[in-house]
Amino acid sequence: MPKTKKKTRSNATAETMAADQRDISVSEFFAKNRHLLGFDNARKAMLTAIKEAVDNALDACEEAGILPHVYVRVLQVNESRFKLIIRDNGPGIVREQIENIFGKLLYGSKFHRLKMSRGQQGIGISAAGMYGLMTTGKPVVIISKVKRKKAHEVVLKMDTSKNRPTVISDTEHPEDDKLFEDGHGTQVTIELEGKYQKGRQSIDEYLEQTAIANPHARITYVTPANETVEFPRVIDELPEEPKEIKPHPKGIELGTLIQMLERTDQRQLGGFLTKDFCRVGATKAREITKGAGMTGQTWIKTVGHTEAEKLYDSIQKTRIIAPNTDCLVPIGSKALLAGLLKEVKAEFFAASTRPPNVYRGNPFQIEVAIGYGGGLGRDDSAKVLRFANRVPLLYSQSSCCSFKAVAETSWKNYGLTQPRNAIPSGPLVVMVHMVSVWVPFTSESKEAIADYDEIRKEMKLALQECGRKLGTYLRRRKRMERESERRSVFERYIGEISRCCNSIVGADTDKLYKALMKQAKRRTDEADSKLDDEGRVLDDNGRLGSDEGVIIVDDLQDIPDQEDTLFGKSTKKKKRKTTKKKTSRKRGKN
Amino acid sequence: MPKTKKKTRSNATAETMAADQRDISVSEFFAKNRHLLGFDNARKAMLTAIKEAVDNALDACEEAGILPHVYVRVLQVNESRFKLIIRDNGPGIVREQIENIFGKLLYGSKFHRLKMSRGQQGIGISAAGMYGLMTTGKPVVIISKVKRKKAHEVVLKMDTSKNRPTVISDTEHPEDDKLFEDGHGTQVTIELEGKYQKGRQSIDEYLEQTAIANPHARITYVTPANETVEFPRVIDELPEEPKEIKPHPKGIELGTLIQMLERTDQRQLGGFLTKDFCRVGATKAREITKGAGMTGQTWIKTVGHTEAEKLYDSIQKTRIIAPNTDCLVPIGSKALLAGLLKEVKAEFFAASTRPPNVYRGNPFQIEVAIGYGGGLGRDDSAKVLRFANRVPLLYSQSSCCSFKAVAETSWKNYGLTQPRNAIPSGPLVVMVHMVSVWVPFTSESKEAIADYDEIRKEMKLALQECGRKLGTYLRRRKRMERESERRSVFERYIGEISRCCNSIVGADTDKLYKALMKQAKRRTDEADSKLDDEGRVLDDNGRLGSDEGVIIVDDLQDIPDQEDTLFGKSTKKKKRKTTKKKTSRKRGKN
Repeated sequence: MPKTKKKTRSNATAETMAADQRDISVSEFFAKNRHLLGFDNARKAMLTAIKEAVDNALDACEEAGILPHVYVRVLQVNESRFKLIIRDNGPGIVREQIENIFGKLLYGSKFHRLKMSRGQQGIGISAAGMYGLMTTGKPVVIISKVKRKKAHEVVLKMDTSKNRPTVISDTEHPEDDKLFEDGHGTQVTIELEGKYQKGRQSIDEYLEQTAIANPHARITYVTPANETVEFPRVIDELPEEPKEIKPHPKGIELGTLIQMLERTDQRQLGGFLTKDFCRVGATKAREITKGAGMTGQTWIKTVGHTEAEKLYDSIQKTRIIAPNTDCLVPIGSKALLAGLLKEVKAEFFAASTRPPNVYRGNPFQIEVAIGYGGGLGRDDSAKVLRFANRVPLLYSQSSCCSFKAVAETSWKNYGLTQPRNAIPSGPLVVMVHMVSVWVPFTSESKEAIADYDEIRKEMKLALQECGRKLGTYLRRRKRMERESERRSVFERYIGEISRCCNSIVGADTDKLYKALMKQAKRRTDEADSKLDDEGRVLDDNGRLGSDEGVIIVDDLQDIPDQEDTLFGKSTKKKKRKTTKKKTSRKRGKN
Repeated sequence: MPKTKKKTRSNATAETMAADQRDISVSEFFAKNRHLLGFDNARKAMLTAIKEAVDNALDACEEAGILPHVYVRVLQVNESRFKLIIRDNGPGIVREQIENIFGKLLYGSKFHRLKMSRGQQGIGISAAGMYGLMTTGKPVVIISKVKRKKAHEVVLKMDTSKNRPTVISDTEHPEDDKLFEDGHGTQVTIELEGKYQKGRQSIDEYLEQTAIANPHARITYVTPANETVEFPRVIDELPEEPKEIKPHPKGIELGTLIQMLERTDQRQLGGFLTKDFCRVGATKAREITKGAGMTGQTWIKTVGHTEAEKLYDSIQKTRIIAPNTDCLVPIGSKALLAGLLKEVKAEFFAASTRPPNVYRGNPFQIEVAIGYGGGLGRDDSAKVLRFANRVPLLYSQSSCCSFKAVAETSWKNYGLTQPRNAIPSGPLVVMVHMVSVWVPFTSESKEAIADYDEIRKEMKLALQECGRKLGTYLRRRKRMERESERRSVFERYIGEISRCCNSIVGADTDKLYKALMKQAKRRTDEADSKLDDEGRVLDDNGRLGSDEGVIIVDDLQDIPDQEDTLFGKSTKKKKRKTTKKKTSRKRGKN
């Protein structure tokens, strides 16, 4: 083999190259690759930092059974530097944990369990602090108050070369007790290089969408211009608490099974299968072990690679019911519809919540809501609002599974125009929400959902359900328009005819006119009679009538824009009242 | 603040929550998020594993000044399981380092330096082994031979809960010496769940594109069907060795400056600035320190946060020349054109290599080549080939900076059709290559280049340069077509006219015909005369004539498809020979 030995080459050897090899700390890695965490640029960095803090705040409150009140303040220090203050009324953080949670990447309680929550990686908030440190050199300040203890302040910097917190000060701060009205909570202050700008992908948009998906949270937001924006609490009740689950046997790979066998506390196969997995009882365990030529009494330590492979194959062949689904807490069609109704000035709304499903052993559930027509832009592409575990996703739309699902759905079937391989055009808003014990994001910055077939399929099914309802509505609306045109043609000539009949045979013009008019109305009645009744619309072959997941609004002014009807039960009364009006053809659905 | 205390809630407290907090090992993190590393599905996983191994092999060879020969074998074990064997003739790996390099994420020599190389993270190859372990339970087998030592075999598994290698066996294997003809090299064998499929985004496509961008490498590929595909070496010379550089003062942030001050071996500011940065000499150091109210003799330990901020501000105000660019080794317009000419059946080729530029202190350089017309599909969108440090990027096209740059370029100006916000349509192939000491990828799987303004701008400038050349060519071609039409109109009537003249005045038909024909040719000469000469085309106002970065091919059969003309000097002779032909209008450019 020819070799080139130029004078300019250093020609490293195996030995000189070995000398350069060393460990890379995870925080060095992410500091250099901070765009992976959502800190690409000054504007996005600020949003990401707030998002991480708010997500943590909501998670902590819900886990402790506390109705969340989150306070967000963005203070402008100078042209390009901001101070972010995020405070919650959560349970607080015990003193010893503060430095790890805020000063170390990959540290947390949410990674090692299978439970639906906003955070899952143990990276976010410490990365925000790291970004602040990198851009301004300023430490993170955490004040936390645990029930029955005094408020406590920790000032810390991350030592990125070691991924370890360096605590600058750690002191009791009883003077800060007053920050926490409920007697407990956490406040974090991060100073960073940032850029504040309203509009798409802004902090404002993020908080707005967070409020939609979290009607049980109160959010107070003080903008850099010192304006206070309140997102009040709409529901005085926490969502159901999602349960933690064990892995499902069908969701793990051979290598993972072998690892679990190596690490289990159990000593026999029967115990291992029933205790370390969900959905495996004594009978199933017997079936699985028998299929692998073993028994429930087989000692784990005798299970080698070959036995593990047999066990794995046996699991694949055994019918095991899908994971428990009480680990998933969707927003629900009703609240979704109410949310969309509040934010989107459309005329037709439909929602669909799919039954739970499983990808790689992780239970997940898809909800979709759409809004069509009304005040929405007719010439634009549809707008897609994306959520994962109640967190709005604002970036990386085109790489998100939900976006692909929208593009792959044949909206032409439902009466919309759609360019090839693209999302449909027209006055349409689509909201897609995925809840799961483990949302597979395409990057650490959690901006888009990875494209798993199972997930995309569920999304498409939910989209199709909503699409069919929209199609039915649009077809029916077309028919109504046709009938209404027919009637106006009748009406145009009835007067003439009556007068002619009068002049020919002397019939009573007025009487004849009224009789003919009645006939005309009766013949074109089909359309409007079924749309006039109280919210039960299109209930013949159209079959939208008894659908829980549909709202039709004609009179856009009637959409209540008071906050308290957003998700509350008051919606019901409000809508009923207005739907009685005969002429306004207002149709509300509860 | 109201609280909900349902019976079903666990109502965690700060204390119970603290008990669940723990470290997450980086390998656990990536095992659960393995799609971040490119192991989303069975097919892609196999490509990623091969890519990581080949990238490492090429890097090792080049660093040691060895012309690379990489052997890739894909062995099908059963329906869904494959064994990948990748062997190189690199310098080998010393025994003590093998387990860390292959059994630990975030370990390597390339992360902590600023030097152009394919690998940069210290994740890839160990992640491939981890994926194999997870899906098949099988360990990674590494055989390495260092010069003057016996071959050595290490079998290892990664302990993901600790991100540490577990060595199963570690033995001398002199019987494997014969694997390494050159007396040194490394072979890695990974068994994994995979799926083999040719076509777009396949192993075959990856190796093909790798061969284009690495003409100095020989690649032998044995497919699962046991066919051997050879990508022979085209250039018997290694590319220039890229130099390692120090960070540029303008490329760091305040926080990084503070960290560097804390960690430097220097004791005075002057030494710190001149030794730890590039492009700062004694004069510049004086200018910077003076601007911050300090001197080169200021002790580092006296530089606090305030002084660091002043220093940082002073750096921003000081004019410092851009980083050295000998750290960048582009492929070069000529080799790019030759590569494209070989792979793409187009009629027009143009290339452009931009001068180096800097993003966040990291030098980078953009090269673009385009191919147009000929045998390319007329109705499709343009095809974009993307490379980073000579590595082809096959996935995540739409989130890649290069793709955005292509879409943002106004191709209409150059005579192409282009849908709004999309890449142009028509018979066009665009190749974009970025070289840098640190390529900012959008994810650990290194599939797309992050969207930095500086990078996108350079890409657009290079695309525009190529686009202008294409525009000139297309306009000129249109003019030629017009002239050629004019001539054919002349020709149609010249015979008739000659005969008429003959019958009227008895002139010699033949003589007249020839004279008229000569006139016609002269009048429409403008177009083809300038295209016929030897490769110097469109050299009046069109000004493509003396352009080094353009090739025009009319007769597609003339494109040599022998490997040895791909990048070699033989291209020159070959093309010259054929361009003399008058009728074929073959125009080659060297």
